[in-house]
Amino acid sequence: MNFYVLTLFPEMILSGLNTSMIGRASEAGILHIEAVDIREYSANKHYKVDDYPYGGGAGMLMQAQPVYDAWQSVTERIGKKPRCVYVTPRGETFRQEKAREFALEEDMIFLCGHYEGIDERVLEEVVTDYVSIGDYVLTGGELPAMVMIDAIARMIPGVLGNGASAQSESFEGNLLEYPQYSRPEEWRGRKVPPVLLSGHHKNIEAWRRQQSILMTKKYRPDLLKGAELTEREQNWLKEIERTEQNSQKEAELTEQNLQKEAERTEQNLLKGETE
Amino acid sequence: MNFYVLTLFPEMILSGLNTSMIGRASEAGILHIEAVDIREYSANKHYKVDDYPYGGGAGMLMQAQPVYDAWQSVTERIGKKPRCVYVTPRGETFRQEKAREFALEEDMIFLCGHYEGIDERVLEEVVTDYVSIGDYVLTGGELPAMVMIDAIARMIPGVLGNGASAQSESFEGNLLEYPQYSRPEEWRGRKVPPVLLSGHHKNIEAWRRQQSILMTKKYRPDLLKGAELTEREQNWLKEIERTEQNSQKEAELTEQNLQKEAERTEQNLLKGETE
Repeated sequence: MNFYVLTLFPEMILSGLNTSMIGRASEAGILHIEAVDIREYSANKHYKVDDYPYGGGAGMLMQAQPVYDAWQSVTERIGKKPRCVYVTPRGETFRQEKAREFALEEDMIFLCGHYEGIDERVLEEVVTDYVSIGDYVLTGGELPAMVMIDAIARMIPGVLGNGASAQSESFEGNLLEYPQYSRPEEWRGRKVPPVLLSGHHKNIEAWRRQQSILMTKKYRPDLLKGAELTEREQNWLKEIERTEQNSQKEAELTEQNLQKEAERTEQNLLKGETE
Repeated sequence: MNFYVLTLFPEMILSGLNTSMIGRASEAGILHIEAVDIREYSANKHYKVDDYPYGGGAGMLMQAQPVYDAWQSVTERIGKKPRCVYVTPRGETFRQEKAREFALEEDMIFLCGHYEGIDERVLEEVVTDYVSIGDYVLTGGELPAMVMIDAIARMIPGVLGNGASAQSESFEGNLLEYPQYSRPEEWRGRKVPPVLLSGHHKNIEAWRRQQSILMTKKYRPDLLKGAELTEREQNWLKEIERTEQNSQKEAELTEQNLQKEAERTEQNLLKGETE
């Protein structure tokens, strides 16, 4: 798969994506990531790419022409017009399903905005997908583009060293990952759960599945609704909730008793003082 | 504000955040971003930091000891234990409000996971905040850490060149930004909206506000509920919706008429054939 990133900061893209798995997949020729420097397409002799916004306001805008010419340099070279993603808060929120969808493309272009944004007219000409990676504001489009490329790339067969990895991970099946432990068996007084040392694969799998459900219940209860749980697991979850409620009630009762006790003691003391 | 990033890829952090506004703010001493190489804290003579997970399974885990020692090297040096963020799908979703909250801290530590994750025990020891930047899976914690640092940093006074910028941008007031235009007035047959060239500030502001509302209605209707609209704006929106519905009805009617017409023609033709 080929990624073309139109940016004012090509070094940022290259160094940010050239490490770890993505870097290895690029070296192996499974991925091709190219940063296209928009500034090189400036028609201005000082390589200027920004100007004041019409109608006034703070900051500068990226102009239409250099962005368009950078985009055109890619589309003409590869002889097609692939999907072109612009990162913007107005976009659809990027999720795992979107990563999977984009991973089916052969080529993709990412357009990274800076300053106060880009002239609307060039967006209308080249952008096919307005995408946001979350409800927060960033100084530019480079980091979100890298985030998306990373998420997309790891869905491509051969990018992750181990074929099983992309499957068994978080969000698949709407359950979070179980906690993991590595050597040593005891560290700062904390021990690895004995079941993991048992060598009993069925028990280990059952424990991990339970932990996944518990993790999801604790941290992302919103995901649980979409998780496929067996009837036995659902009953087990209900049982846990009942126990939790009971122990909460007990704790509240104990709390109330302690408070009453404290009040009695205080009253007795006060009596003692006034007597 | 000081950011300490515990990572296996320190160059990635430094080059990824050393451009543009964040880089300038670092040079100006407003920000201090430091990448702490976890590998340097390995007790192993080959600088090994990962090992197999207990209980089996694909991939390797980052071990507790080097992570803990890297964390401790920071906390001992600065003489306090600041909030420590671990990027994980189990975390609370990062949003603009969270960026604002973190921007009030003096120091922050970010722990970047890799491989199949980190030994749970060290997370229990050092992590104060489990945070996710969105519902997608990435190959490591570096990109999300950079995304968060970028979002947090731009909320710190003095980081954005122009004080007004952080305020007037997307998500503030639950409205998306209006479209922006820069020189030239006409580009590839597309003209800048005349009102922006009028110099009439009140009209420009009114137009931009309307465009913001329209953009939000079109791309992020979910945000509109939380937007503070005047009664007049609400009525205006209702009017637009009515017009849209009417023109949709009209289009449907036209469609039905055309279809009837086509059917009539076809029947006439058939009649002609059989006669």
